[in-house]
Amino acid sequence: MSLTAFFQPRSIALIGASEREGSVGRAIWDNLRGFSGAVYPVNAKRAEVCGAKAYPSIATLPEVPELVIVVTPATTVPQLVEEAGLAGVRAAVVISAGFKETGKDGAQLEAEVLATAQRHGMRLIGPNCLGLMNPHAGLNASFASSVARPGRVAFLSQSGALCTAILDWSHDQNVGFSAFVSTGAMADVGWGDLIRHFGDDPHTKSIVIYMESVGDDAASFLAAARAVAAQKPIVVIKVGRTAEASRVAASHTGALTGSDAVLDAALRQSGVLRVDTIEELFDMAEVLAKQPLPTGKRLAVVTNAGGPAALATDALVLGKGELAELSPQTMAELNTLLPAQWSHHNPVDVLGDADAVRFAQALRIVCQDAAVDGVLAILTPQSMTHPTNIAREVAVIASEIGKPLLASWMGAQSVLEGRGILNASGVPTYDYPDEAAQAFVRMREHRLRLIWLSETLSAHADDDEGEALPCVGELIDAVLGSGRTLMTEQEAKQLLHVAGIPIVETRAAYDEEAAIAAADALGYPVVIKLLSSTITHKSDCGGVQLNLLNATAVRQAWRLIQDNVTHLHGLAAFDGVTVQRMVTQKGMELILGASTDAQFGPVLLIGAGGTLVEVLQDHALALPPLNHALARRWVEQTKIAKVLHGVRGQPAVDLAALDDVLVKFARLVQHERRIVELDINPLLATAEGIVALDARAVLRA
Amino acid sequence: MSLTAFFQPRSIALIGASEREGSVGRAIWDNLRGFSGAVYPVNAKRAEVCGAKAYPSIATLPEVPELVIVVTPATTVPQLVEEAGLAGVRAAVVISAGFKETGKDGAQLEAEVLATAQRHGMRLIGPNCLGLMNPHAGLNASFASSVARPGRVAFLSQSGALCTAILDWSHDQNVGFSAFVSTGAMADVGWGDLIRHFGDDPHTKSIVIYMESVGDDAASFLAAARAVAAQKPIVVIKVGRTAEASRVAASHTGALTGSDAVLDAALRQSGVLRVDTIEELFDMAEVLAKQPLPTGKRLAVVTNAGGPAALATDALVLGKGELAELSPQTMAELNTLLPAQWSHHNPVDVLGDADAVRFAQALRIVCQDAAVDGVLAILTPQSMTHPTNIAREVAVIASEIGKPLLASWMGAQSVLEGRGILNASGVPTYDYPDEAAQAFVRMREHRLRLIWLSETLSAHADDDEGEALPCVGELIDAVLGSGRTLMTEQEAKQLLHVAGIPIVETRAAYDEEAAIAAADALGYPVVIKLLSSTITHKSDCGGVQLNLLNATAVRQAWRLIQDNVTHLHGLAAFDGVTVQRMVTQKGMELILGASTDAQFGPVLLIGAGGTLVEVLQDHALALPPLNHALARRWVEQTKIAKVLHGVRGQPAVDLAALDDVLVKFARLVQHERRIVELDINPLLATAEGIVALDARAVLRA
Repeated sequence: MSLTAFFQPRSIALIGASEREGSVGRAIWDNLRGFSGAVYPVNAKRAEVCGAKAYPSIATLPEVPELVIVVTPATTVPQLVEEAGLAGVRAAVVISAGFKETGKDGAQLEAEVLATAQRHGMRLIGPNCLGLMNPHAGLNASFASSVARPGRVAFLSQSGALCTAILDWSHDQNVGFSAFVSTGAMADVGWGDLIRHFGDDPHTKSIVIYMESVGDDAASFLAAARAVAAQKPIVVIKVGRTAEASRVAASHTGALTGSDAVLDAALRQSGVLRVDTIEELFDMAEVLAKQPLPTGKRLAVVTNAGGPAALATDALVLGKGELAELSPQTMAELNTLLPAQWSHHNPVDVLGDADAVRFAQALRIVCQDAAVDGVLAILTPQSMTHPTNIAREVAVIASEIGKPLLASWMGAQSVLEGRGILNASGVPTYDYPDEAAQAFVRMREHRLRLIWLSETLSAHADDDEGEALPCVGELIDAVLGSGRTLMTEQEAKQLLHVAGIPIVETRAAYDEEAAIAAADALGYPVVIKLLSSTITHKSDCGGVQLNLLNATAVRQAWRLIQDNVTHLHGLAAFDGVTVQRMVTQKGMELILGASTDAQFGPVLLIGAGGTLVEVLQDHALALPPLNHALARRWVEQTKIAKVLHGVRGQPAVDLAALDDVLVKFARLVQHERRIVELDINPLLATAEGIVALDARAVLRA
Repeated sequence: MSLTAFFQPRSIALIGASEREGSVGRAIWDNLRGFSGAVYPVNAKRAEVCGAKAYPSIATLPEVPELVIVVTPATTVPQLVEEAGLAGVRAAVVISAGFKETGKDGAQLEAEVLATAQRHGMRLIGPNCLGLMNPHAGLNASFASSVARPGRVAFLSQSGALCTAILDWSHDQNVGFSAFVSTGAMADVGWGDLIRHFGDDPHTKSIVIYMESVGDDAASFLAAARAVAAQKPIVVIKVGRTAEASRVAASHTGALTGSDAVLDAALRQSGVLRVDTIEELFDMAEVLAKQPLPTGKRLAVVTNAGGPAALATDALVLGKGELAELSPQTMAELNTLLPAQWSHHNPVDVLGDADAVRFAQALRIVCQDAAVDGVLAILTPQSMTHPTNIAREVAVIASEIGKPLLASWMGAQSVLEGRGILNASGVPTYDYPDEAAQAFVRMREHRLRLIWLSETLSAHADDDEGEALPCVGELIDAVLGSGRTLMTEQEAKQLLHVAGIPIVETRAAYDEEAAIAAADALGYPVVIKLLSSTITHKSDCGGVQLNLLNATAVRQAWRLIQDNVTHLHGLAAFDGVTVQRMVTQKGMELILGASTDAQFGPVLLIGAGGTLVEVLQDHALALPPLNHALARRWVEQTKIAKVLHGVRGQPAVDLAALDDVLVKFARLVQHERRIVELDINPLLATAEGIVALDARAVLRA
């Protein structure tokens, strides 16, 4: 349902309007005066509020208001929402606190409010919020003490306190808003609804979110982000990167925060840019709305001083950007233009005595180089420098080049006018050149996220045509039918096999002779592993015997495993063994896993195996579905990817085959939700191909 | 020699003083007018400069000036310095450009100027600089257009352009300076001289450096830093973290920049705080001068809103700080003071309706907790909040507690007055709470650096008593005497052995029978390796055979190595083999290495061995000398340190023995400078001890 009534209502009722100075009901009443539509105070105890006729109830209003705002105590809210619903109201902002954040009783009250609203088809923002603003409509339906300036950023915040600080700061920084929404507890209207709404809103150029929790409907959030992010940048700061901060956020909003790493993967695949500081949050919202995105990572720097350019270069390269290599033609033109002592490479130091003409000509030459994906202009106020004149020239160039152009006019008073000219022309300016280089890196990152996004959209489209493999379902039915949720290694491998993932052929053997027969058939050397319906980590109890060269060794291994397991876990834990050929090819051992996240559903993990790398925590997450392009990007997130490409004379592994395995693995867990855990460890990657050497699966009963 | 004449001269001569508007000679003349001492213009072509009597030469001045400032063209400078020296001048600032930065001829001119100055015992700042200022003495001996405000920061910059931008910015930010020095090419006066001078200067509380190159005398810089850093914070931004930026810096100042990783290690051991951005540079200079350092990493947060506290928590924990765990007594006192809905843990959320009394009482309680090493107060301007009143209370508390106290008064206009009160009371304020948490982390880092420093000082003191081991010298004499610079494995191990580092006993064998005899004597299994005076990487040519169980295997191995080497490199490369016991203990394979840096001398490296970890680049550098405490800190810089402490049921390795090996290794390369490269790879670390399994050494002829 549309949220238009929240942001462009024709009429508003304020339930709990008050004359009392310092009360929320009074603050909102005062703020609503700037609104051009009808505003009705509702107050059962008074005939008038600040000179306006007050109404005892919603039912007594002269018209059905399009939006109601509720500020009365929590316990009164269910009844008031009921009355509003009966009257035909379809949008309510519940400012009142005292719900989920206070504990169990509050949560029940909140559930009651939500159920009532839903029964009437009413949408609800809050409870426990500051309210909302639409500066373009003169609407301030909040108890914030000032109103946001009109602008193009839709700001959504899960923290009311942060709203007030940002509002104050935005006046100082001349940042304007198309909307300012304190989301509160998000009992009903959540991220997905709001992102879709502002995706359609013509006044909104970018969506900026302060998030403490992704909320109950992660799927709706991600789907909305995927639908909007390519058209309008969505920039998020999400607290709770660390477990400690999650706890802080959780305790104060009553929201449960999930694994940050999973969210990070979800945002990456959905085209959402995540930043770490509030400063970056608004900076990136502005930059992304004003400037084209760089098609590559090569930045050129034009500067009138070397030191600041070196600062920018460090920041650029540390952020995985690159200095553009200027073309011979560009070099020739610069050599003609510039004094002999110019730097003769990028960064282009036009020297401290450069006037506006020299600076602008050099900048124009550099901008035209096809090997340049973006340009940073740095100016320091030296004795011969005219920061304002040069800014005017740069502003003209910015409008012509179709590439990102950023500026750092360093200093304070002497560059203020120049900065103003640049900002007004859509050229973002930075106090320090390192910040500007970081912004370029972020722009590049956003461009990469949009590529992720387009691949994610295509993977989703492909996936909608796909369906669960019937033979997978049958296998799982059989295991669950036997009363188990833990698959044996052989069953788990069979699951992978029917999903199209190469496995090492593995045979079950329930007595010594069968084990030897299987080994003879498969060929030596073989590996013998415990077969058990109860023990999942086989190697911990001596249940894995490697590199067995003949029948005698197989017999010994059988007995050893039987003894070990019986000794530790009793005879019932020993069902027999599995037999498989020992793979002796050299290659890289990976782990490929899937688990189930409470908010996001199936989550995939890839990384390197082995004790050491486990200590080093080298792995990356992704959400299904995948296609080949996404699979490749995903693997590239790990450090081990370098090794997969071949290092120190070793050949690259079969990357195309690896992509294929990853896509099939993702499809398997995406379509068969009864698989709650699935691990291939190790997944052996060699130049000849990819093969699962061991597997483990846990099902939902 | 003292630099006092540069910063407190009684008289100054400006050589090249000019009336011409826009000239450097005129700009400096105008700037010098604020100076209270005598200032003489020297100009051979004019009788007067701007109304003041001009002198044709230094010799004709009525007195010998304490300081001369030279702005005339480069080619005139050697003669002018000669004249000044003859006249008895002992301090000169050479502003003029046209020296080393222009190429070979300029470099020669610069060498001439330096030699002349040194002949006369004259100190020289520059050439190619902006000049210097001492705001406390009203001295502006620069061509910057404005003078720095008096304050407590000594700012030293290798970039003149950055000086002008920083100066402009400092007026805006109310940052004051005890001195402002554009160092230029540092032909004579360098970092070491300046740090020692400002270490003694009573007006200076902190030293802030923008560095492009450590210069020719790294030892002097580090010794000065070690002498000063414990008393006055030294904060450095050094461009050239990346190779690309090094190139930029090098090309524009003519300075050669060395390996950034080596510099990083040197700064860490010398108590110098390195930051990455100009914003941090001045912030940390201020914070470190105003606030006590935290004794631990545990921060408490007192806030009137949860969201901002979560932002601070993320930044804190990502920076390796910790949230303090409040004591039961603190909790009890807060429970008594605060409304029931308070957060009930750190961060202490005193709730949005907190007045100044509640906020201050909670802050005081938290500050008194012994488990709290530092405190961050966060305020968001909510409807009931009085930012100014609360700031007053916080300022009082700050003066009492003896722990670091930082503040983030979020917003703009409504918190301006409060911020002013806090800043004036020495409480640093931050626009965003994440920046404040980062500053705490930096303060903690600085404290750790001062601990590094005290250990470095003690290691230097011990080392001064130590001396080269005579038997080491004899070994090296013998190898060099035989016309080689590459030691054999056996010789390199002998070198380690006499230095007190455990090795696996290794015997040379020049025929098959000798190899078998050695193996019989050492005990099986053994390892046989190529013995060659020309081949250094033995395993690349099949020159290493492991795990040989008996004499037959030794014989086969001899032949295999001989065949391999002869085939690849000819018979002359094969001198025989070495025989050593195969070490079968499980443990961690490390690499311990030393190389020689052009600027810093011997540099030590420790890290993990093995192909994989080499790809992951897990190693740390240090400079000798070491003591046990430094050795331990050094190892803790690597990721592999976690494994050395014992993981996944494996025992910790013998860390005390490892420390001992590192200290002895450092002493060896520190005292015997003919060793230019020395690698132990692998150095096997187990719970039972540490042992060098292989070694390689290269000598200086």
